[in-house]
Amino acid sequence: MTTTQVNDPTRNGVDTATLFATLDAVKQAPDAANFQFRAHNQWLSGTHNRSTITDYYGVGTERSHQRTFVFDADHPAVLAGQDHGPTPAEFVLHALAACLTAGLANIAAARRVTLTQVRSTVTGDIDLNGILGLNPEVRNGYQQLTVRFTIKGDAPADKLRELVAQSQAHSAVYDTITNRVPVTIEVDTP
Amino acid sequence: MTTTQVNDPTRNGVDTATLFATLDAVKQAPDAANFQFRAHNQWLSGTHNRSTITDYYGVGTERSHQRTFVFDADHPAVLAGQDHGPTPAEFVLHALAACLTAGLANIAAARRVTLTQVRSTVTGDIDLNGILGLNPEVRNGYQQLTVRFTIKGDAPADKLRELVAQSQAHSAVYDTITNRVPVTIEVDTP
Repeated sequence: MTTTQVNDPTRNGVDTATLFATLDAVKQAPDAANFQFRAHNQWLSGTHNRSTITDYYGVGTERSHQRTFVFDADHPAVLAGQDHGPTPAEFVLHALAACLTAGLANIAAARRVTLTQVRSTVTGDIDLNGILGLNPEVRNGYQQLTVRFTIKGDAPADKLRELVAQSQAHSAVYDTITNRVPVTIEVDTP
Repeated sequence: MTTTQVNDPTRNGVDTATLFATLDAVKQAPDAANFQFRAHNQWLSGTHNRSTITDYYGVGTERSHQRTFVFDADHPAVLAGQDHGPTPAEFVLHALAACLTAGLANIAAARRVTLTQVRSTVTGDIDLNGILGLNPEVRNGYQQLTVRFTIKGDAPADKLRELVAQSQAHSAVYDTITNRVPVTIEVDTP
């Protein structure tokens, strides 16, 4: 750990000393980085359902978030739902923005760039002829996602763009969306 | 619209009359199914950031959800965050469970199957050596997702499993995760 980190332990709200200590710990014990995240969903009515997110596995043991997070999803009335929550597909946009932004803050802190504003809008174009089963040539999922960042900080524009590129290059959600992830579905009917 | 639908307009909380009317409307005007969903994200501090989801485009016009939905994301302390929300990657699990469940309820209603319980747990295995930049051979995103449903309803097990398979075959989020979606990232540095 360098003197700089000790003298300037946080930047952008990132505890860089802890961040570097975490990296060092995982270097020594790579298996600590094997995580399993989980969401538990319960159907309520129609397209309305609710997930709770609390337990996960990581650094060799079962863990829990400091509190249980609860999220509703639904379809809007125009899609025959009741709008009790965003559509499931909208949560994917939030996940992408959140992942890129969290990574950006970490990477900026590690490189001693102080950020003063990070805003983004993620748009996802989707042709619902796919999921409605009306056109087999139309895919079910998003056809294109666009993330537009507005970033201010104490570094030149080129440096800020490079930080975003680094976040993109190490983003779990970006990779999950832009590359294939195998999904297994099991059904129990007690 | 058949007599059955008029006599039994809702099932599983799904307004099947509206659902079939929506399908008919899109058949007549396929462009109505061109949607754009959006999330607006603001960085707060460290890995903590917040998305608002309210506006979207669909059926030929700008629209808004009945209210603005707000979601925080963060990293847990064990990953140098402050646990103000689930990790971004956990929202992907919620999105997948929610999409498959909403589709299941719709499809079951359309096929006159009454559901009495739908629960699911989505687990996502991820090796953080990828996003931590410690092993270039490890991908950043999930290596494997598993969805485990427990379903009860007034149909045989085989039929219930077939409904899940149909939902999977028309799920926006399942397709987004299991197939590649192109993502464009733009950065403005005012």
